[in-house]
Amino acid sequence: MATRIGILGYGNLGRGIDLACAAAPDMELVAVFTRRDPATVTPVTASVAVYPADELDAHANDIDVLVLAGGSATDLPQQTPAAARAFNVVDSFDTHANIPEHFAAVDEAAQASGHVAVISVGWDPGMFSVARLYANSILPDGADYTFWGRGVSQGHSDAIRRIPGVADARQYTVPVPAALEAVRAGQQPELATRQKHTRECFVVAEDGADLAAIEQAIVTMPNYFADYDTTVTFVTQEELDRDHAGIPHGGSVIRTGTTGAQGECTHVIEYSLKLDSNPEFTGSVLVAVARACARMAAEGQAGCKTIFDLPPAYLSPLSDEELRAHML
Amino acid sequence: MATRIGILGYGNLGRGIDLACAAAPDMELVAVFTRRDPATVTPVTASVAVYPADELDAHANDIDVLVLAGGSATDLPQQTPAAARAFNVVDSFDTHANIPEHFAAVDEAAQASGHVAVISVGWDPGMFSVARLYANSILPDGADYTFWGRGVSQGHSDAIRRIPGVADARQYTVPVPAALEAVRAGQQPELATRQKHTRECFVVAEDGADLAAIEQAIVTMPNYFADYDTTVTFVTQEELDRDHAGIPHGGSVIRTGTTGAQGECTHVIEYSLKLDSNPEFTGSVLVAVARACARMAAEGQAGCKTIFDLPPAYLSPLSDEELRAHML
Repeated sequence: MATRIGILGYGNLGRGIDLACAAAPDMELVAVFTRRDPATVTPVTASVAVYPADELDAHANDIDVLVLAGGSATDLPQQTPAAARAFNVVDSFDTHANIPEHFAAVDEAAQASGHVAVISVGWDPGMFSVARLYANSILPDGADYTFWGRGVSQGHSDAIRRIPGVADARQYTVPVPAALEAVRAGQQPELATRQKHTRECFVVAEDGADLAAIEQAIVTMPNYFADYDTTVTFVTQEELDRDHAGIPHGGSVIRTGTTGAQGECTHVIEYSLKLDSNPEFTGSVLVAVARACARMAAEGQAGCKTIFDLPPAYLSPLSDEELRAHML
Repeated sequence: MATRIGILGYGNLGRGIDLACAAAPDMELVAVFTRRDPATVTPVTASVAVYPADELDAHANDIDVLVLAGGSATDLPQQTPAAARAFNVVDSFDTHANIPEHFAAVDEAAQASGHVAVISVGWDPGMFSVARLYANSILPDGADYTFWGRGVSQGHSDAIRRIPGVADARQYTVPVPAALEAVRAGQQPELATRQKHTRECFVVAEDGADLAAIEQAIVTMPNYFADYDTTVTFVTQEELDRDHAGIPHGGSVIRTGTTGAQGECTHVIEYSLKLDSNPEFTGSVLVAVARACARMAAEGQAGCKTIFDLPPAYLSPLSDEELRAHML
């Protein structure tokens, strides 16, 4: 019998989860919940019912795992603990600094209700995290590097859009090739922020806006751009829509370390992703983890988990025998 | 208290395990067992006792996890089930086709004795396997590719040495750059054996040997070389010792897949290794897994496991709280 999935929130990520359910024969999307008018939401899987978010709890018996597609800033800190009181849940909470606090709140709710909650699932945090963990466990003497991109940063794009005179914008985070090369060669370089990534901004200005002032506001913006080499290219809305409509992303987690009596052998471990669609890939990870979540719940487990706690086999629809025979 | 490790067998891999224990503060190598004269074996960790292999069982109470450093052809099919009757064990059994049979034999012994046995640990099978499993679980619509090298194949080197007139040899497995490039571009090419890897052979001939006959014997050898573009370079023993003394290896596991209503988005997941020393890296993986093995045994688990069954957190010396705060 298929695992019955619900989705709370239907933006780009919610749509990615919907598509991932459709691609997995053992997963069945049964309901979408939205804070918008349900009549305005059309799931990819046409047969799926759309309900108002405030009717969520009435469907607790129809759903094996609820996948949360909200944002980390304000949605998930409220939604995940609340939902874990009635559902097994999976979220993609990605504010790294607040993970311990989020874990504690979700764990309390999930332990009390006897459900399984898996938080911070996606690619970073998520698959990149597990790559870091394996590599650190294998090579204790070494250094970690994470490069992001080339890909679209939604947060940086939004920051540009808030500048007066900006009509629209898209920002790409780009790894510095020389830095990547030095890391891959096992040189363990010390890299400042500016040496690891550059930022490319494609900006649509409003009619009559002061382009020089916009560019200056971008490249000097603290936290977002001031510490980077940033390029600003002004384009028309048509050019932005035509050439920058996608949401690609990716990156590499690299650990280089040494072994040997005198550290004479160098090893390089790299996990890298090149993604045409960040939300569709993230949705695919969430659905694989929802499979593991359902399995742990069926075993009678409860409480908050992360990707670190899940045996990899639990993410697969294949049996242990099939995995050993064909994938080991 | 440190986890007490024993090693059965002290060749290149046994030495790699010894070095990995020395690099891990929470692991203590307490004994090496050998079929050779113990007086002829000198562990890197000088304080470690060396015992004859047939005295293994007398030390069952002194060792938390026994790591097996024997070969897959004849050693491990006997040693792992036998040792699992008295020890928690970890092995690197790497004959892919025989894994189900090996699993069954080890599981029976470990279940009967109440020990934990983790088999087929290393990088392939091992880290490459878990990379395949995660990638397949995330992207059900896609194709898998494994490239090995550039690296030394011990089995192919041995096969060359068995040819009459050959004094010594070293064989490198080398991925075909164009194939790697096509796969990384997400093109999902169909690749014949010859299109994925080439084989480079460095051969020391005996005095007066027929070089043309040796080359012919190599390039036409069934299974080992006939299906590949193979180059043979004759070198002196001095050149071989000087330029080809290392045991480097590595490779890449790549899965490319699509998402979207019409499969319009392509994603590339790659896990790659560049290793200066195959046995030292493999030993490092075995020791991280020995940590997980000890933890599962302490929980009261029993039976045969693979890397697929181990929560990644179990491989790390860090606490769950530390992992969530710093590595997620």
